[in-house]
Amino acid sequence: MLTLDALAGLSQADVVVHDALVDRRVLALAGPQARLEFAGKRGGRPSAEQDDISNRLIELARAGKRVLRLKGGDPCVFGRGGEEALALKAAGVPFRIIPGVTAGLAGLTAAAIPATLRGINRAIILAAGYGADQDGVDWGALARTGQPIVLYMAMRNLAKIADELMRGGLPPTTPAAIVVSATMVDERIVLSTLDRVAADAQAHQLGAPSIIVIGNIVSVRERLIDAVHMAESEAAR
Amino acid sequence: MLTLDALAGLSQADVVVHDALVDRRVLALAGPQARLEFAGKRGGRPSAEQDDISNRLIELARAGKRVLRLKGGDPCVFGRGGEEALALKAAGVPFRIIPGVTAGLAGLTAAAIPATLRGINRAIILAAGYGADQDGVDWGALARTGQPIVLYMAMRNLAKIADELMRGGLPPTTPAAIVVSATMVDERIVLSTLDRVAADAQAHQLGAPSIIVIGNIVSVRERLIDAVHMAESEAAR
Repeated sequence: MLTLDALAGLSQADVVVHDALVDRRVLALAGPQARLEFAGKRGGRPSAEQDDISNRLIELARAGKRVLRLKGGDPCVFGRGGEEALALKAAGVPFRIIPGVTAGLAGLTAAAIPATLRGINRAIILAAGYGADQDGVDWGALARTGQPIVLYMAMRNLAKIADELMRGGLPPTTPAAIVVSATMVDERIVLSTLDRVAADAQAHQLGAPSIIVIGNIVSVRERLIDAVHMAESEAAR
Repeated sequence: MLTLDALAGLSQADVVVHDALVDRRVLALAGPQARLEFAGKRGGRPSAEQDDISNRLIELARAGKRVLRLKGGDPCVFGRGGEEALALKAAGVPFRIIPGVTAGLAGLTAAAIPATLRGINRAIILAAGYGADQDGVDWGALARTGQPIVLYMAMRNLAKIADELMRGGLPPTTPAAIVVSATMVDERIVLSTLDRVAADAQAHQLGAPSIIVIGNIVSVRERLIDAVHMAESEAAR
């Protein structure tokens, strides 16, 4: 899923500051001069040390290093890319942002669920499920749009989110899928429904990194999956 | 923005069936054996010949060709990827889907607008603006989520969509940005507000391909843009 632009960044960087979601095979593409540096908590939860990471990027830049801050997915979709960019800006460090394939959309494709299909949906909502108690998302309002919802970092609050979506009017039987470690070797896909998805996640002991998609678009999977499996066995031959 | 997976597909394909949004520099990466074939209308509007395209893919596959169907952005985000996959499945043609960086999110980054930023939004909505008369999107319900909205293929219906979003409760002063030809050489960015965005698009004679983003997240651009320009002039040196 790495883009050519990110690959160029890897080959040119003096230091690659990466998170836990970056595959080893991607890190292996860094140039011979590059030093790899890990930053961020493992486990897909928001890092308490975000300021430390931004400060480290600034410190490296001020030391004259070309720094690639490499994240799994798209850095600006629930990836703190905007926060880090603002910190660099405040410090007077020049930068550019390279988009990536966001985990929510890559996860859907990995699960043979198209993000959009005419006749089913004309919109798709990407939403962060962390910290649902404190601020932000009006789950009832999202439910009332009738559009599919892709949840990032929602495992911990899944029961509460599912509950609020149902109270917002989404039928308990709405199809749902959990995609764990999308596109990685340990990828797992669990199909469920809105009323059972939190229990199913627990029963299967599913953890981060995972995305959860809720909506009728999930049903398209069963119309596609045989063909996808055929292609995979073709590719394996 | 091309991924390594798509690059591998380009190098292996016998035939590359591409749309108008694929850059020439990308097509130049096809293997020496590859034949390039154009499919789809130019101008970013939905193609009337979708069935023809699907049938052509099936025909090529049945003739024993390895076919890469190459689209700008992500094929499954308002790109008919799901429809083409279902047609292939019905015809018994094995396939796999390679995700890409979707135009809406790449367009935001190109415009120095992070898709998400803590304290501003916990969700982002991608929505198709074509055919708004006939079916699908409840714009008022999307407005009531309070989350930023990224519109694809919305130029034709922009006045009507903006109107419905305002009737749904979004303030007329909500920041908006139009990004034309995101990441391409003729990229243009026009900043506006919800009440003026349709008129501004017309006044600047903006056309497809473009994405329009509506929401407070647009305001982050002015806090980032100097730094991005600095990096661009660095890169140009």
